[in-house]
Amino acid sequence: MKFLLAQLNATVGDIAGNAQLILNAYHEGVQEGLDLVVCPELMLTGYPPRDLLLKPKFVDENLAALQRLAAQTSGTGLLVGFVSRNDSGEGRELYNSVALLHEGNIKDIRHKTLLPTYDVFDEERYFEPALANEPIFFKKHTLGVTICEDAWNDEDFGVHGRYMTNPLEQLARKGCDFLINVSASPWFLGKNRVRQSLLSSQAKRLGTALLYCNMVGGNDELVFDGGSLVVGADGDIKLEGKLFQSQNLIVNPTVFTLEAKKNHALIDEEKIFKALSLGVKDYVEKCGFKSVLLGLSGGIDSALTAVVAVDALGASNVRGVAMPSEFSSQGSKDDARELADHLGIQYDEIPIQSGFESIKQSLSPVFLGLKDDVAEENMQARLRGVILMGMSNKFGSLLLTTGNKSELAVGYCTLYGDMCGGLAVLSDLPKTMVYRLSEWVNRHQVVIPVSTLTKPPSAELRPDQTDQDSLPDYEILDAILQAYVVDHRSAGEIVSMGYDQAIVARIIRLIDLNEYKRRQSAPGLKVTTRAFGMGRRVPIAQRYRDKP
Amino acid sequence: MKFLLAQLNATVGDIAGNAQLILNAYHEGVQEGLDLVVCPELMLTGYPPRDLLLKPKFVDENLAALQRLAAQTSGTGLLVGFVSRNDSGEGRELYNSVALLHEGNIKDIRHKTLLPTYDVFDEERYFEPALANEPIFFKKHTLGVTICEDAWNDEDFGVHGRYMTNPLEQLARKGCDFLINVSASPWFLGKNRVRQSLLSSQAKRLGTALLYCNMVGGNDELVFDGGSLVVGADGDIKLEGKLFQSQNLIVNPTVFTLEAKKNHALIDEEKIFKALSLGVKDYVEKCGFKSVLLGLSGGIDSALTAVVAVDALGASNVRGVAMPSEFSSQGSKDDARELADHLGIQYDEIPIQSGFESIKQSLSPVFLGLKDDVAEENMQARLRGVILMGMSNKFGSLLLTTGNKSELAVGYCTLYGDMCGGLAVLSDLPKTMVYRLSEWVNRHQVVIPVSTLTKPPSAELRPDQTDQDSLPDYEILDAILQAYVVDHRSAGEIVSMGYDQAIVARIIRLIDLNEYKRRQSAPGLKVTTRAFGMGRRVPIAQRYRDKP
Repeated sequence: MKFLLAQLNATVGDIAGNAQLILNAYHEGVQEGLDLVVCPELMLTGYPPRDLLLKPKFVDENLAALQRLAAQTSGTGLLVGFVSRNDSGEGRELYNSVALLHEGNIKDIRHKTLLPTYDVFDEERYFEPALANEPIFFKKHTLGVTICEDAWNDEDFGVHGRYMTNPLEQLARKGCDFLINVSASPWFLGKNRVRQSLLSSQAKRLGTALLYCNMVGGNDELVFDGGSLVVGADGDIKLEGKLFQSQNLIVNPTVFTLEAKKNHALIDEEKIFKALSLGVKDYVEKCGFKSVLLGLSGGIDSALTAVVAVDALGASNVRGVAMPSEFSSQGSKDDARELADHLGIQYDEIPIQSGFESIKQSLSPVFLGLKDDVAEENMQARLRGVILMGMSNKFGSLLLTTGNKSELAVGYCTLYGDMCGGLAVLSDLPKTMVYRLSEWVNRHQVVIPVSTLTKPPSAELRPDQTDQDSLPDYEILDAILQAYVVDHRSAGEIVSMGYDQAIVARIIRLIDLNEYKRRQSAPGLKVTTRAFGMGRRVPIAQRYRDKP
Repeated sequence: MKFLLAQLNATVGDIAGNAQLILNAYHEGVQEGLDLVVCPELMLTGYPPRDLLLKPKFVDENLAALQRLAAQTSGTGLLVGFVSRNDSGEGRELYNSVALLHEGNIKDIRHKTLLPTYDVFDEERYFEPALANEPIFFKKHTLGVTICEDAWNDEDFGVHGRYMTNPLEQLARKGCDFLINVSASPWFLGKNRVRQSLLSSQAKRLGTALLYCNMVGGNDELVFDGGSLVVGADGDIKLEGKLFQSQNLIVNPTVFTLEAKKNHALIDEEKIFKALSLGVKDYVEKCGFKSVLLGLSGGIDSALTAVVAVDALGASNVRGVAMPSEFSSQGSKDDARELADHLGIQYDEIPIQSGFESIKQSLSPVFLGLKDDVAEENMQARLRGVILMGMSNKFGSLLLTTGNKSELAVGYCTLYGDMCGGLAVLSDLPKTMVYRLSEWVNRHQVVIPVSTLTKPPSAELRPDQTDQDSLPDYEILDAILQAYVVDHRSAGEIVSMGYDQAIVARIIRLIDLNEYKRRQSAPGLKVTTRAFGMGRRVPIAQRYRDKP
């Protein structure tokens, strides 16, 4: 059999647009004389459709679109992810399904068995699991079709290995010629390696070739990387789809006998950069915007955000705004301007001193006799937010917010101030990763000014301030952050890893107390196994305090 | 058997504090010579603990606290909700459990079977369901113990009636003397009636008396109302716990033979007011604050919010701030001051004109030649946000935000402006309900100035503005909001209910497009069956547009 793996970029809710993408891929498959065109999980609705699934009409429209697609099929088969109804009267009302369309009809339908309900996933909120897994017979071949998580019950791969059924194995035991997995599997750093190892191990163990078709593109917090795969029955990766790009990957029978021929491996920094760039581009465009703006402080976070935005949208669609105060160093102002010059983006400088003085003056009757403190520091950040949002409203550009994961963790950021914006580009990047990525950006030529990389990081909200007045070194902070937030280690365990007890206690306390800021933060692009946002659901009014 | 239903107010994560509340109730049960003290679902951890459950040490500490509680029990039994581990190696790692503690030991443990995973609930994210339900034998009686949702599989009560097992029925068929349901069942308007009907119908159908012990108190968005119940085998409600208050409800055997003696029924407005007041009080105090502040515009939303805050925290802990601009009418300024006088709260007036002019001046180079528009309107709201957050930071008071559900739905509010605040008190109240509740507040004497209730609502961000310049009448808006957001009706269905096609199309479009604002809104107290927030999960970058 000859296949086409259609690694497509669905937009959530755009049923007509997604159907058109499917048809385009299908027509290529027909022209090439292939047997089966395979599309990703929930390709018709986009993934994750979330509570759009609770609208009966939305489900109806997806079913009608499936019928229309079926009507347009000929001798080439088309495998499409969609939402179907559970009409049994028991259990949840929907299934996460895949249909085989052929010669004008819906020939077969299969449902997802393993429904991820952890991290960013809520599938048991919507779907009933399949009760059994049967192969599909098509063109004298036996196909074992599964959906995403169905392939992830493998005790060698840890965390999700507690499911009680193994759909892939059930199908393989029934004697399949090919296992096919259609996915909408979001990316995080390290995912490609885990996914390839898992699928390779499964194919080899079950002695069956496996085709894996994954979605690509950004939808809110999630970036789907594509990276579709063909794995031989020997477990070798025979063919890889591109990362972070749409692609029609044609798979002819000889592939399965070839030596494995892998793509040039991307290094971590390049993967992260491409994920962020795709996430920005798709969020901005899928929300209906063309351009973005952002504050440029001369610091590294806003510099890296600007570089990502220019890669995603082009320099002409990015505008940088410097808003210096009396506490802004000349170096920072120079760095902001130099960055804008390097990137070729529109650049404005709007000093905030007079506005700040005016607001302080307004508040002087109620602040009478009180010293300046964090209230005045935040006020500067919030005034900058007012200016940027004013420009966003006036010019119809989306404001990007530039904070990193380290500062979002400990609350070293101002709610309604530097946290303003529609998308938090770096909010899942620890500060040390912001440095690594920035150095990678500068690998061939200096884009981010050297002094931005070398000067001590500072919020510049009071005289001679640096981040390390309030925080430990970022190497230490980020290690504690990883242990506490990502790995769920206890305070005691972190201390026994070799970190200072007082520092651990303080950082954990800051992380816990600043949940209220994160609850109101912009959606941020997920790049690690545990991002703040919908994948981490912590109460605000809670008193659990883990102490070393 | 004689029981005590301990209707307690748990704080999420405060295991030691919750254990103390349990012990206090237990000691009363011992002193009264009762047989069994019953506590709510997950009383040891508080509900909902959400991702605190992913911390192994948190689960350990809850288990250790249960052991300590057990060690303190004597001849009186103690039924406690807690989290237990699933050590089978299959399925999720935790159970939502209840333990019977007696004479120093953990005598029995039962697990929850039906795990709500809809609306605000995420229980399948954490818990494995019980596979079977067995009665507990205690003091020569057979007790059928279930947890919350386990009692809710009843096809007469609609939406949740698709479960495949019925734990209550399974237990009753095994011949129980009493059915006991321990709950953490959050309140919404209408819940008490549904709950009483359901439990009454179940008790009668199964011919078994039923004791229902519910949690009380606010935790983030959720308010638990208590309202514990004793239902006779005839289906009559024999005894009711108080609403929105902690209570130790003693149930002696004669209750089951008495005529039903119901509490004085609260009217809707009183229930909503008490729910909001408890929600505010608990959020503020459980977050570690003592006082709040809020902006007073002279309008009805901020007035009602102030009344609720004073009820919750006392007048001395509430501060109102008027921030008039050139567009504020004298009437609004008078109304704000009069309200503060009536409530006896601290009142400040901080004009924003000079700050607004100063910010406009700063932006004049980039706004050169452009007309004033929504950017300048929002700027005023955001400047007020800067002032209020400055005061919040300076004085350590929590800022309450005052917007209602209608404006949050259509985005008639300013992100980082009037949306600033730690808790959105009225965000689940449609504007028409804000009026109803305000009139109820004024039922005995005028608290909210009469002109606040009678003048046309206005944001006062431009000359002679009223809400109805941009929006249909609130009666119409709220009906569309109910149909679209709460009931998931399609645009076509709403038009066929009798609403104007163009208005329906515009309102639905506004609701869809303003998801980005709601994603960054403060947590808001849930009072309807479908609130914005964690119970409604809609993507931002999505293109589904339902048109009439």
